[in-house]
Amino acid sequence: MKINNNFLIKMRLFCVILIGGIKMHAEVIAVGTEMLLGEITDTNSQVISEGLADLGINVFYHNLVGDNESRMAEVIRLAASRSDLVVISGGLGPTPDDLTKQVVARYLGRDLIVDEKAMTKIKDFFARRERDMTPNNKVQAMYIDGAVSLQNEVGLAVGNYYHDEQGTDFLLLPGLPHEMKSMFETKAKPLLAQQYKGQQVLNSRLLRFFGIGESNLVTKLSDLIEKQKNPTIAPYAKENEVTLRLTASGSSDVDDQELLDELEAKIQKRVGQYLYGHGENNSLPSVVVNKLRKRGLTLSASESLTGGSFQAAITAIPGASNVFPGGFVTYAAEQKEQLLHIDPKLIEQYGVVSEETAGAMAEQTRQIIKTDYAVSFTGAAGPDPLEGQSAGTVWIGLAGKDMPTRAKLYHFPYDRQRVRSSAVMTGFGLLNDVLG
Amino acid sequence: MKINNNFLIKMRLFCVILIGGIKMHAEVIAVGTEMLLGEITDTNSQVISEGLADLGINVFYHNLVGDNESRMAEVIRLAASRSDLVVISGGLGPTPDDLTKQVVARYLGRDLIVDEKAMTKIKDFFARRERDMTPNNKVQAMYIDGAVSLQNEVGLAVGNYYHDEQGTDFLLLPGLPHEMKSMFETKAKPLLAQQYKGQQVLNSRLLRFFGIGESNLVTKLSDLIEKQKNPTIAPYAKENEVTLRLTASGSSDVDDQELLDELEAKIQKRVGQYLYGHGENNSLPSVVVNKLRKRGLTLSASESLTGGSFQAAITAIPGASNVFPGGFVTYAAEQKEQLLHIDPKLIEQYGVVSEETAGAMAEQTRQIIKTDYAVSFTGAAGPDPLEGQSAGTVWIGLAGKDMPTRAKLYHFPYDRQRVRSSAVMTGFGLLNDVLG
Repeated sequence: MKINNNFLIKMRLFCVILIGGIKMHAEVIAVGTEMLLGEITDTNSQVISEGLADLGINVFYHNLVGDNESRMAEVIRLAASRSDLVVISGGLGPTPDDLTKQVVARYLGRDLIVDEKAMTKIKDFFARRERDMTPNNKVQAMYIDGAVSLQNEVGLAVGNYYHDEQGTDFLLLPGLPHEMKSMFETKAKPLLAQQYKGQQVLNSRLLRFFGIGESNLVTKLSDLIEKQKNPTIAPYAKENEVTLRLTASGSSDVDDQELLDELEAKIQKRVGQYLYGHGENNSLPSVVVNKLRKRGLTLSASESLTGGSFQAAITAIPGASNVFPGGFVTYAAEQKEQLLHIDPKLIEQYGVVSEETAGAMAEQTRQIIKTDYAVSFTGAAGPDPLEGQSAGTVWIGLAGKDMPTRAKLYHFPYDRQRVRSSAVMTGFGLLNDVLG
Repeated sequence: MKINNNFLIKMRLFCVILIGGIKMHAEVIAVGTEMLLGEITDTNSQVISEGLADLGINVFYHNLVGDNESRMAEVIRLAASRSDLVVISGGLGPTPDDLTKQVVARYLGRDLIVDEKAMTKIKDFFARRERDMTPNNKVQAMYIDGAVSLQNEVGLAVGNYYHDEQGTDFLLLPGLPHEMKSMFETKAKPLLAQQYKGQQVLNSRLLRFFGIGESNLVTKLSDLIEKQKNPTIAPYAKENEVTLRLTASGSSDVDDQELLDELEAKIQKRVGQYLYGHGENNSLPSVVVNKLRKRGLTLSASESLTGGSFQAAITAIPGASNVFPGGFVTYAAEQKEQLLHIDPKLIEQYGVVSEETAGAMAEQTRQIIKTDYAVSFTGAAGPDPLEGQSAGTVWIGLAGKDMPTRAKLYHFPYDRQRVRSSAVMTGFGLLNDVLG
């Protein structure tokens, strides 16, 4: 499968190879018949692979097998024969076809023993709900003798980490994505880091960029990426943004933060103008909404081609009501005139997809809703052209107190949905630049 | 991994077992290093599994391997040793690490030969762009001697279907999801149906339901599902809707359509009030927009908790401009008063989250924008309550010509995002009911 160009893939492989201390080979297994039937997509294996790559652990294979004892045993035997670490998600739940722990225990010739802390939690859970606990439910609190039991902070089934100096290590995680993710991040990754990275402490920092493509970003940082050892740099391209994950491995958290600060400063110098935030939960809309909120500023909008998606993105963020009182969806030209009181002559003269209309939309919206800023969107989302303007042509207007109203022209060479989402993110990008 | 209850899984397995003629065991392989690094999720294997399930072909394993010749060969050998059909996506592209065809050809002891039609297409492609064609690009037009070359209607690399009466069959598909999907649906599935279903012709029909949960739907149809042979019934739960895929296997298309009509009539009788449409591309918003368009009717909206997402869903559909002139996002109470001219006393008396406010919002919106219908949304999206109303409480208003304005109360027991998306879909559901 070719999604990115080869250079990027090589850069990434290079990161994974450089980061490693001891050279581990890991393998990922997902368990669940409903995925073999194509009912749902296995997303766990991707999340696990990304986390293992952060730790410098190579992944050579993914496998997916149903809730079938003999086929599961066969896949586990094969994985153990060719990998140093086998990470399995799924099959830890309370139903009779949840068999992962049992199958791995049998492969290892070990018993399952009870984690009393987890058992108490399960008993409490059923007592509070006044429901009877079936024997199957107890299995959720059991773990393989000799393994570390991993507490499940968002569910009932414990995970397992089994280390064998001579043989293969096993990490067993729940199948529900949010349980898996929570246990992997908070319980398993620190253990893996400790086991495979010696006494080193691992710390990551996610940098988020908007307005620059992945190839361009990687090119501007190519010498840093080629020279990288500690911290490492892993670029990821997402729709409408690029992220860099920096991972430092030092003798303490303080050491790591110093290493990360130093590298971030170098990156800032070269591409700082595109860096808008840090961390998984800080999307560009939430960064903008939080900046506005902290400064007591307000925002409104009027949307034509984006049809409400910009305002939907603002209001998706809890607490948006402090910042955003409301706005307009002025899809038809007459509504730009009726709701925003734009002079019909202006639209007639310049057209709806124009600098003048975008500017007037933003200006009028700000006046009517009485906010500090207002953003406007007008353009041709496609598939058809609009007023002779090709699909993907978008004007974004921005009005604000103490600044002249402006409008910028964009051409997004994508399909309808992506033209709209790119326009929305670009609107947030413009606001973020103005807010500084 | 347990997402649905066991009953549903068993029903589904039951469907897959019943549908089959010859009992095939298939295995799916995805190829691509970037997926092992966790950069992207493999979605192809899910799509392929779903399609194979439709054909009554059991899938026992998924595998994912990088662009590495020896590991790829090992995975292919193993798959061929335990499965009747091996479906591989990825590694058909023009770069040196695209090796799938070469590795399978070597396993089979066959040469690669040129598909002249595909080669002409590639040459034209480069000639039109005035770019030089590298030798690697030619490999995209090559296929395994003895296989059927599958034309790629949305890309350049051909697929391969290799059938061996005595041994294992191979289906090779491109890795890019849209190329894979197009080739699988239009080229590969008919071949597989012909090969494994004898002279039978296979036809599927997708029924889409809103307003009923999967367990409830399956329970109401349990005898039909248990008795099913031809057509088969496969239920799938998605966010905010449930679908049933009916698949008939008869001696002709006409036969199949008769079988499907007969079964659909039975389903209609029991749960027809929830059935809103047919086919992959007919989402509830597009069904509603198309009904309005065909009847020359128009729609507007005012949104509080949904913050523009309802209008964004309307305008996501090409041609929405015939139906939707515009609307309001009245997030703050004052904007409900200012933009919609709702009497402040009404809001003061009943609150913003009330039948009265929802009704007034819909009514005023319809008056101002002058449309046949108007929908309004007001409620508490969460995480916090609003005016003492718990998160998930939503009033949806509907005003229309020749009907009294109405508002309905809902409680969506979900998180903020899902409360909003459920409210939006429910708004479309209400409109669909009114439009009949």
